[in-house]
Amino acid sequence: MAIQRVTSVDLHLDLDPSGSRREALARALRDAVRSGRLEPGVALPSYRALALDLGIARNTVAETYAELVDEGWLTARQGSSTRVAHRARPTPVAGAAMPPQPRPLFDLRPGRPDPSSFPRSVWLASARRAINDAPSDAFGPGDPRGRIELRTALSDYLARTRGVRTDPQRIVVCSGFSQALTMLNDIVPAGPVALESFGLPFHRSIVEKSRSTVALGVDDKGCVAEDLGAGAASVAVLTPSHQFPTGVALAPERRTAAVQWARDVDGTVIEDDYDGEFRYDRSPIGAMQGLDPDRVMYVGSVSKSLSPAVRIGWMVVPDRLLDAVVAAKGVRESTVATGDQLTLADMLVSGRYDRHVRTMRMRYRARRNLLQQSMDRADADVRIGGIAAGLQAVITLPPGREIDALNRAAGIGLAIEGLSTFRHPAATDATYDGLVVGYSAPTENAYPAALEALMSVLS
Amino acid sequence: MAIQRVTSVDLHLDLDPSGSRREALARALRDAVRSGRLEPGVALPSYRALALDLGIARNTVAETYAELVDEGWLTARQGSSTRVAHRARPTPVAGAAMPPQPRPLFDLRPGRPDPSSFPRSVWLASARRAINDAPSDAFGPGDPRGRIELRTALSDYLARTRGVRTDPQRIVVCSGFSQALTMLNDIVPAGPVALESFGLPFHRSIVEKSRSTVALGVDDKGCVAEDLGAGAASVAVLTPSHQFPTGVALAPERRTAAVQWARDVDGTVIEDDYDGEFRYDRSPIGAMQGLDPDRVMYVGSVSKSLSPAVRIGWMVVPDRLLDAVVAAKGVRESTVATGDQLTLADMLVSGRYDRHVRTMRMRYRARRNLLQQSMDRADADVRIGGIAAGLQAVITLPPGREIDALNRAAGIGLAIEGLSTFRHPAATDATYDGLVVGYSAPTENAYPAALEALMSVLS
Repeated sequence: MAIQRVTSVDLHLDLDPSGSRREALARALRDAVRSGRLEPGVALPSYRALALDLGIARNTVAETYAELVDEGWLTARQGSSTRVAHRARPTPVAGAAMPPQPRPLFDLRPGRPDPSSFPRSVWLASARRAINDAPSDAFGPGDPRGRIELRTALSDYLARTRGVRTDPQRIVVCSGFSQALTMLNDIVPAGPVALESFGLPFHRSIVEKSRSTVALGVDDKGCVAEDLGAGAASVAVLTPSHQFPTGVALAPERRTAAVQWARDVDGTVIEDDYDGEFRYDRSPIGAMQGLDPDRVMYVGSVSKSLSPAVRIGWMVVPDRLLDAVVAAKGVRESTVATGDQLTLADMLVSGRYDRHVRTMRMRYRARRNLLQQSMDRADADVRIGGIAAGLQAVITLPPGREIDALNRAAGIGLAIEGLSTFRHPAATDATYDGLVVGYSAPTENAYPAALEALMSVLS
Repeated sequence: MAIQRVTSVDLHLDLDPSGSRREALARALRDAVRSGRLEPGVALPSYRALALDLGIARNTVAETYAELVDEGWLTARQGSSTRVAHRARPTPVAGAAMPPQPRPLFDLRPGRPDPSSFPRSVWLASARRAINDAPSDAFGPGDPRGRIELRTALSDYLARTRGVRTDPQRIVVCSGFSQALTMLNDIVPAGPVALESFGLPFHRSIVEKSRSTVALGVDDKGCVAEDLGAGAASVAVLTPSHQFPTGVALAPERRTAAVQWARDVDGTVIEDDYDGEFRYDRSPIGAMQGLDPDRVMYVGSVSKSLSPAVRIGWMVVPDRLLDAVVAAKGVRESTVATGDQLTLADMLVSGRYDRHVRTMRMRYRARRNLLQQSMDRADADVRIGGIAAGLQAVITLPPGREIDALNRAAGIGLAIEGLSTFRHPAATDATYDGLVVGYSAPTENAYPAALEALMSVLS
């Protein structure tokens, strides 16, 4: 109900003795105007009257009125009362809520490292050391390329573990693979972009904001790189070490063909090395970038090795694209917090990152072995595809069984994705029914039950 | 020089006893191919010969060859030697270096809080508590809107300190104001964007990637909001609390006019509240957003209050734009590390953030007072403009003196910017010569000398 004369009661004044009375009064007045209890045009009491009424200093009232006049809530005219400003009352904010995302009973969604495995104490120890030891200028505006400490540590790490050929000057820190994709438009010439016929739909969406995409077939040797020359694209986004999500490794002759194509068309391969550290049966295949650092832009991140909640990735950039990447990154703003960059640098240099990756590699290998054993016990027409690597595997199903399996999974609370979700809509190569099993998603304790749930869906 | 027969000497093998021999061999072979010492087509020795030569297991050689064949460095054909692959040798990476940024002797550049004041131990204590106490799912994929803990803490904080009217559902965490600007194109209808005639050039560049901009005059009451109606824009980016860089506060009637304009044209005001916490002579003016949360999108960050190296900002989004903002943010990826979000939430809830802001407010107030006193001693035609607030002030100079002052500043190693740097190229309102003094940039100890340097330039 609208009121005509303001008193402490009308204002619901809650004068916290430890707080500022002026702030409390200002808040109460704003609330009264917002809620409509104080209507436009209503005269407020004089400083003196309100001060007496509320038991506060007259100056406090005067200053509060002045503040609210400045803010546009009240109007003051020489020789007249202070009044509530004439302006449309804002509509009350409706209770528009986002639908809460229920946590699934069993979680085998791909692309998610075990969240309970995040090395909290290791991270915090490195953070303490890194932040305490950082020079003051680390807390000034960041270099858009990223901190030199991290780029140096990455340069060593990537050469050692992934055969990447680079130096700190050619590494640009970003928040993850999708940021790199977002910049694509600013760094390579216009034209269609070749994507693998299976891949992450949200990566495709990012590219298709500004480009058309074409689908490159994928078979048991990886993407059919020989077909690149037939299209109009001069940029290809590939997952050579472990095709996502089918899990095959790109065959040697196709790696060579892709690089040769990029040379022929003056183009660029974007290598998405999303889980290159995780190979279980042998040493990881080196990055394709090593074959030709001027034709392959290598992109990696900690999203699989540490957590997608740590927003750090890196682009290893061909010389000819370096200026454009730095310009696209923005002259002034770095996107990744300096403290996090220095923390990761400390983890890399101290060997803690390697140790964590080794631990996780053993765990995920054991999980994949369990998955393999379960599949061996399943129907003969259900089999696991791809190499022993990464955090996900495709379970190939007999034709027509994918929808059925997904429906049954939904029925028992198993979160899992069908292979068709990852299919490029324009793809024309052979496809098949399948489930993409993200065996890293559950915690160690929850994995056996999730696997049982999967088996029950397949039986 | 190219070699025809590979031995341990040629390979520069450095078999670290603690490391993997296979990895060392693979690295040495890759290096030899890259450098050109092993030329395309050259046959490698048999497994047995190289194993004997190097004193390692035959299997190790076989596995290494297989690995390099997979990677495309070598080729193997049944019944023939393993050979170096025929492919163009990559050109050596040239020593393209970025020019190093020399640290200025005296630093009065605007927009930079004192980097030595970053509260390292407070930040680390909050990080320890936040990361140790976080639920496991905090290390899973992030909500693109940001963590609910931070949005809840911000909702309280912004209502209490800035008069912002919101709730956690309407807050979207971003990496800073420039990320919000980057998303503009995805959230408001096409058309020109009104910018203040003085502002950050790099903000203008972001907008002009996809839009044209028009310049809104700025005088001693802030931007001339009444002129908004004359243009074709339906979006205006404003700094109402403290115009950047001129330092004036937007007058009450103009705040109302801007909101009314937005209602009339079904438009949006983007409120850049970059330093709203820092007012020295009175309580800060409340955010304009409180006048109409459906017409004003409020954007703030910790870039001035903590450090631009901490990449956390927030958008308080009108209901009608909320879906578009969340979609633009990306369905899957958050850009701000969850650990940092939880750390800031802990600082806000524990009151540590308020305490830090109070400390910095006192320091910067003292610095501004010193600047004011220095100006009072200077020529009568040199004066300080704007309200007692924020981290920068414009020193108004007599006509034609700006270039001269900048040249003299450069001569003595004083980094400072001229007002004309911040001028919209299409602005037609009155301008003047001036220097933008970022008095927060130096450390406490370095400030007096920087001020003296400034005085010598003005004398």
